Amino acid sequence: MERPVVRVGVIGAGFVGSALVQLLSDSTRHRALVDAATAPLELVGVAVRDKNKPRPGIEARLLTSDVEGLIGSDLDILVELAGGIEPSRGYIRSALLRGVSVVTANKALMAQSGTELAQLAHEHEADLFYEASVGGAIPILRALRISLAGERISRVMGILNGTTNFILTKMTSEGSDYESALAEAQALGYAEADPRADVEGFDAAAKVQILSSLAFGTGLCGEEISREGITGIRGVDVEFARRSGYVIKLLGVAERVGESGVSRRAHPAMVPVDHPLASVAGATNAVFVEGAKSGPLMWLGQGAGGEPTATAVLGDVLDAARNRVSGRHDVPFSGDPSLHAVEVGDLSSVFYLSVDVIDRPGVLAEVASVFGRHEVSIQSMEQSGYADEARLSFLTHAALSRDVRATVKELASLGSVDSIGACLRVIDGGGA
Amino acid sequence: MERPVVRVGVIGAGFVGSALVQLLSDSTRHRALVDAATAPLELVGVAVRDKNKPRPGIEARLLTSDVEGLIGSDLDILVELAGGIEPSRGYIRSALLRGVSVVTANKALMAQSGTELAQLAHEHEADLFYEASVGGAIPILRALRISLAGERISRVMGILNGTTNFILTKMTSEGSDYESALAEAQALGYAEADPRADVEGFDAAAKVQILSSLAFGTGLCGEEISREGITGIRGVDVEFARRSGYVIKLLGVAERVGESGVSRRAHPAMVPVDHPLASVAGATNAVFVEGAKSGPLMWLGQGAGGEPTATAVLGDVLDAARNRVSGRHDVPFSGDPSLHAVEVGDLSSVFYLSVDVIDRPGVLAEVASVFGRHEVSIQSMEQSGYADEARLSFLTHAALSRDVRATVKELASLGSVDSIGACLRVIDGGGA
Repeated sequence: MERPVVRVGVIGAGFVGSALVQLLSDSTRHRALVDAATAPLELVGVAVRDKNKPRPGIEARLLTSDVEGLIGSDLDILVELAGGIEPSRGYIRSALLRGVSVVTANKALMAQSGTELAQLAHEHEADLFYEASVGGAIPILRALRISLAGERISRVMGILNGTTNFILTKMTSEGSDYESALAEAQALGYAEADPRADVEGFDAAAKVQILSSLAFGTGLCGEEISREGITGIRGVDVEFARRSGYVIKLLGVAERVGESGVSRRAHPAMVPVDHPLASVAGATNAVFVEGAKSGPLMWLGQGAGGEPTATAVLGDVLDAARNRVSGRHDVPFSGDPSLHAVEVGDLSSVFYLSVDVIDRPGVLAEVASVFGRHEVSIQSMEQSGYADEARLSFLTHAALSRDVRATVKELASLGSVDSIGACLRVIDGGGA
Repeated sequence: MERPVVRVGVIGAGFVGSALVQLLSDSTRHRALVDAATAPLELVGVAVRDKNKPRPGIEARLLTSDVEGLIGSDLDILVELAGGIEPSRGYIRSALLRGVSVVTANKALMAQSGTELAQLAHEHEADLFYEASVGGAIPILRALRISLAGERISRVMGILNGTTNFILTKMTSEGSDYESALAEAQALGYAEADPRADVEGFDAAAKVQILSSLAFGTGLCGEEISREGITGIRGVDVEFARRSGYVIKLLGVAERVGESGVSRRAHPAMVPVDHPLASVAGATNAVFVEGAKSGPLMWLGQGAGGEPTATAVLGDVLDAARNRVSGRHDVPFSGDPSLHAVEVGDLSSVFYLSVDVIDRPGVLAEVASVFGRHEVSIQSMEQSGYADEARLSFLTHAALSRDVRATVKELASLGSVDSIGACLRVIDGGGA
């Protein structure tokens, strides 16, 4: 039986693109790929900005700077690995409009325009797969989309950003301060020269949007979701967490609230040391899913890097290829219009709050009365003094986030308060 | 648009079957299931041995004892949850011959007859899904089959049996001996009155066959694979492991050896405390996958229980339903005929071996000379005495399993040796 050839084009030849091209060109894997795709894959072109720049491992004849020409060359599957919003969005739209299936690792774009692109894919009977956009090599999206399709998921919570987890792990295990841990992450290539997308939580927030869309059916349309970064976390906070049986992690959380509410947020939190996420160290990513019937499930793996990410892209390419051969496409993302977003202020949690004060009589009473005025009840307090200052570290009872925010605001206005340190949610088994 | 109805029949109303029927009947989930299946599911019957026995949560009109009648009633999907080899195998064959897709949680049957049944499914354009047969709620099979289809996997290694992991966790964390930990597992319902399938490694070995077939393309045809249980593990072994930085776990392992060899086995092993599998406690299951490009990946979750297992079954039912609606079936399991099984004796590993000897001069020299004769080199030895006996605990350098076996055999024949205790492989990052 003559098998059709599945024609694949790639945009981008960075770390992931190069690794993908090598996987597709590896002759020792040829038979395995044909079996998995149910047809031979043919790499017809790799679009790059400068096609004259040498690209080791990519045949020169494959390189092109004409992206639209590549898309129009009777492609079956377009793989978008250039990143960014435009022109990637335009290229993906152009492919889908021609009924070409698309595989992408572009989390920012999917978080912003995923609903629109998924709809376009469905209208033109094409697939739009983006497994590599969350958790690198970890196959979490297909698991949520297919394996757990019948489960009522209550919470998805993950360590979705390797850079910040590397920094927090350094601060925890070696007592590094934030600045030197960040500098080490930059020296090792884990963090960008401008680290804001990672340390301010933008990257984790985009991944939360994608996870939430698959776990709950929330839309993918670029809304701002609640986001806090790790730049304010100090060694003393990490140390307090350790003494209290916690580890500080930057978490992305998507959580069902009541019958039809969903809370989506990215923020640092105190995670109990015996929680499976607590021991996820270094640049590793992990996703923890709680379902009504499945119980807790966790996935762990390399969240970044050219080759790990390329394996996830290749899995999508093979799935899309099988669908092309059998003449079908996957069920589109189906949103749940009854869902509403729950503001982070409406959520209740135990909080850790650290406050630097001038060490004089009456200050604690003054500070404590601010908590009381905002109905935030104190579970425990620890005072540590240095020179004529003191640091007060509080654990609250469960309190509304907006009340804690108001407490912090009023504390910051007190003459006896030098500065407010970290304000972190404490994760427990049942809620965040 | 009128959507077709997908007709589902279930064999078995035990813990998993009852949980599945409740999931399918839950009116609050109706819309989500229709969306996921792309059609309404209709539960047309539940086959049980005694249909007059009351089954809470299952409508009496659904109960039948006529399995062939159920299969013949224009079913789209048969869900087999009765377990055992026959008559389940016959029912599944009967369904596949009619082109009915089959979802099963039957690990013993799939390990024994999976290749034949997968072939039958393919010939009759039906699906055969068995996600729940390994790791309960953990969606590992679909991940290996689809997400990692393009990856060259080097090793799959897992804690695949919750009962033995519960027992070993009790022995590790509470210092229980094997017998009392087993008794506790039985009292809690984790272990059967006859615990052999679990503690002798039969259950883990069947799951290894299934994992190996998906990771490497080895056949599923009931060959015996190498299997050792945990009944010989004593408190002193657990304690030695702890002092040496290890935890004892019963592992199922499928591993590529050289270019075309695959080793499949289930045995207890010493796992380094900082390995992700080491902290998997109690009845939890975990699967650790190492690939050439993906790096290490781990899955963690509930490996048993009616509801967790039923969520995996439901995921398969929804996937099979989508395929029915779109008129296709999944790619069959494709075996790799170039693979050969590697005998466990041909594998090299560091070993832990404990030997009880009569405490008299010259015994250590005598014992050590036996190791030397079989070319097993000793890395370290620890002697602990009690009364006129001594226990010698050895860690070897990497040695062939067959040489270690021969060493044990000769040691057992020595007059100065009272008994041989545990003989355990030591897992490292690179090999087992």
